[in-house]
Amino acid sequence: MMKGCQNECTAGGCSGETAKHVTESFKASDLIITPATTFKEKPDPSGLVFGTVFTDNMLIIEWSLASGWEKPYIKPLENLSLHPASSALHYAIELFEGMKAYRGVDGKIRLFRPTLNMDRMARSARRATLPCFDQNELLECIRKLVEVEKEWVPYSTAASLYIRPTLIGTEPSLGVKKPTKALLYVILSPVGPYFASGSFNPISLWADPKYVRAWKGGTGDCKLGGNYGSSIYAQQEALELGCQQVLWLYGEDHQITEVGTMNLFLYWINEDGENELATPPLDGIILPGVTRQSILDLARNWGEFKVSERYITMSDLTAALEEDRVKEMFGAGTACIVCPISKILYKGKHWHIPTMENGPQLTTRFLNKLSDIQYGREDSDWAVLVS
Amino acid sequence: MMKGCQNECTAGGCSGETAKHVTESFKASDLIITPATTFKEKPDPSGLVFGTVFTDNMLIIEWSLASGWEKPYIKPLENLSLHPASSALHYAIELFEGMKAYRGVDGKIRLFRPTLNMDRMARSARRATLPCFDQNELLECIRKLVEVEKEWVPYSTAASLYIRPTLIGTEPSLGVKKPTKALLYVILSPVGPYFASGSFNPISLWADPKYVRAWKGGTGDCKLGGNYGSSIYAQQEALELGCQQVLWLYGEDHQITEVGTMNLFLYWINEDGENELATPPLDGIILPGVTRQSILDLARNWGEFKVSERYITMSDLTAALEEDRVKEMFGAGTACIVCPISKILYKGKHWHIPTMENGPQLTTRFLNKLSDIQYGREDSDWAVLVS
Repeated sequence: MMKGCQNECTAGGCSGETAKHVTESFKASDLIITPATTFKEKPDPSGLVFGTVFTDNMLIIEWSLASGWEKPYIKPLENLSLHPASSALHYAIELFEGMKAYRGVDGKIRLFRPTLNMDRMARSARRATLPCFDQNELLECIRKLVEVEKEWVPYSTAASLYIRPTLIGTEPSLGVKKPTKALLYVILSPVGPYFASGSFNPISLWADPKYVRAWKGGTGDCKLGGNYGSSIYAQQEALELGCQQVLWLYGEDHQITEVGTMNLFLYWINEDGENELATPPLDGIILPGVTRQSILDLARNWGEFKVSERYITMSDLTAALEEDRVKEMFGAGTACIVCPISKILYKGKHWHIPTMENGPQLTTRFLNKLSDIQYGREDSDWAVLVS
Repeated sequence: MMKGCQNECTAGGCSGETAKHVTESFKASDLIITPATTFKEKPDPSGLVFGTVFTDNMLIIEWSLASGWEKPYIKPLENLSLHPASSALHYAIELFEGMKAYRGVDGKIRLFRPTLNMDRMARSARRATLPCFDQNELLECIRKLVEVEKEWVPYSTAASLYIRPTLIGTEPSLGVKKPTKALLYVILSPVGPYFASGSFNPISLWADPKYVRAWKGGTGDCKLGGNYGSSIYAQQEALELGCQQVLWLYGEDHQITEVGTMNLFLYWINEDGENELATPPLDGIILPGVTRQSILDLARNWGEFKVSERYITMSDLTAALEEDRVKEMFGAGTACIVCPISKILYKGKHWHIPTMENGPQLTTRFLNKLSDIQYGREDSDWAVLVS
């Protein structure tokens, strides 16, 4: 535990030796809303490319060590004016979140388990030595922003409004140190269905220990920028080898960890002959995904098969494939909910994964269950009403 | 080897399937120089805090996949206007370099082995999937910038002008992908002596495997932003434990890798009874420092003791300390040249390192030799004249 640092995160709030004379968190009740008066044309939800179109307004909140948090603003989306020495640009003192607002079949707009995103964002901020904040206040500011932009939430149960909270260090000086200035902002982007055809397109993976996404003692369990930029080079090599995503391995025994920017699930008959849904444990190198948690929660609640957070090595997997014990394998994340896997290239050999041949029954069940909750076809505590 | 990507780096230039119709590198001869007409007051070199004061002008060059590199500009230092979705701010698609301009005893201004920085910057760009460029052209642009700002190079052999080349992804859309827009810029900051008193202040280190700086398959051998922001949390924990820097360990056997943001050297009597200068090898987790390389080159040229790029574990070091075989231990980097180490906290025990008691003879010799070259007291191919 670290002590005595400015704006130290504690459960739901801030404390610290020198934090008394600064604003410990911004408050949603202080929001100053000066929305755009000219409006961009809203695109057809069926033709959206992920993250390329943004709504008319953004949420923005400044922080400094000297003054704490300023009042939050909702104002027209505009470029940021950043000192060229800003610490986010040199030392990647930055983090983000990814969540969505869904327009339900009843016309109401919902968020999906947003407190999990807020909690993870607070943990990321702590790891990045960025200022903490009251997670409930940020969630309420985001709710207000979505309310202002409600017409941007697609009128479609195959699309949604992607929400990107971002927190960056804006310290205007060089030197690797905790920033004395920061900027929290949220931008919104309408996004279409992950699977354009409306049906599953399974992906192929490249599994190679050459590149490692995250490691013990690093930052793989937080949503820091540095985890992502470093992955693109490997992703390009995967594409050149005819695969769509990287299956990230770890350690001498080639543990399976994540896939692209998603968590990974294997539904199989395990070594003991049990039906098991398995995903790697949160041991520091795995991002604690909201979809990951929700899949585990659902499956445990169903109680129909064993649900494990456990290590799975490539040799565990290839042995199971040879013995016909693999049922389904899929990635899980906010963008696609679930993404079936059909092929893995490993040590020069193409391994076929029979996910699609098996329905994919379980993968589809998770997709339907989660989207039923998100689009209001089913009541759930996991859905939080925006308006 | 990756093939077919836009502006693929090759030795000194660019090639690529689609690179023919875009500008493969900016050219220094295209420089458009519109310098500031108002000037900031230049600070007293003795009171400078690293990286807090910047000169009046900056170098800036834009790149896009569609048009390649634009013309380079030298213009007044100003804030950058960045789209809030810019890929540097979300995914740390960013890198930097650190170098210095020195005003010599003869009044001439010199750079120190700048081609090593340019080459490393090109390697970082490749790893970050940022566009490549002709390293000689960038060096010439930097030379011109320093020439424009020559009065900012401190009139002191205890200070210098720090040069910070930076390359960031400015892709204005979300999604973890190779950016289609980028910005290269260079800012300058006069910096004072690292050791304020003019004499060595040795530092104490915290050695703990809890945090790991870099790992095989990662980006520790490139100067990417993500390597740095993630280190500050550990640095803060070191400070709380009464140590000034982190001694970064790696692996089960607690290999010694780097110290803070510096490379590490040990001068000792090794296990075979030989006088040896040792530093960890460039195995993928070590930054190939320019000062590191220069120390190795000098020592090999002297030929007075064994010079090794080799693994050193904490148990190698503690055994040598117990047997009184350690002579000097120091960090090496552009900021301080060399930085003696006097203490290591490891597994709850404070180990005294007798660097200062031993002169430090070798540490001082490197400092004097390198600063003699940098400040023109000694002729060397390593010094490149600016003007």
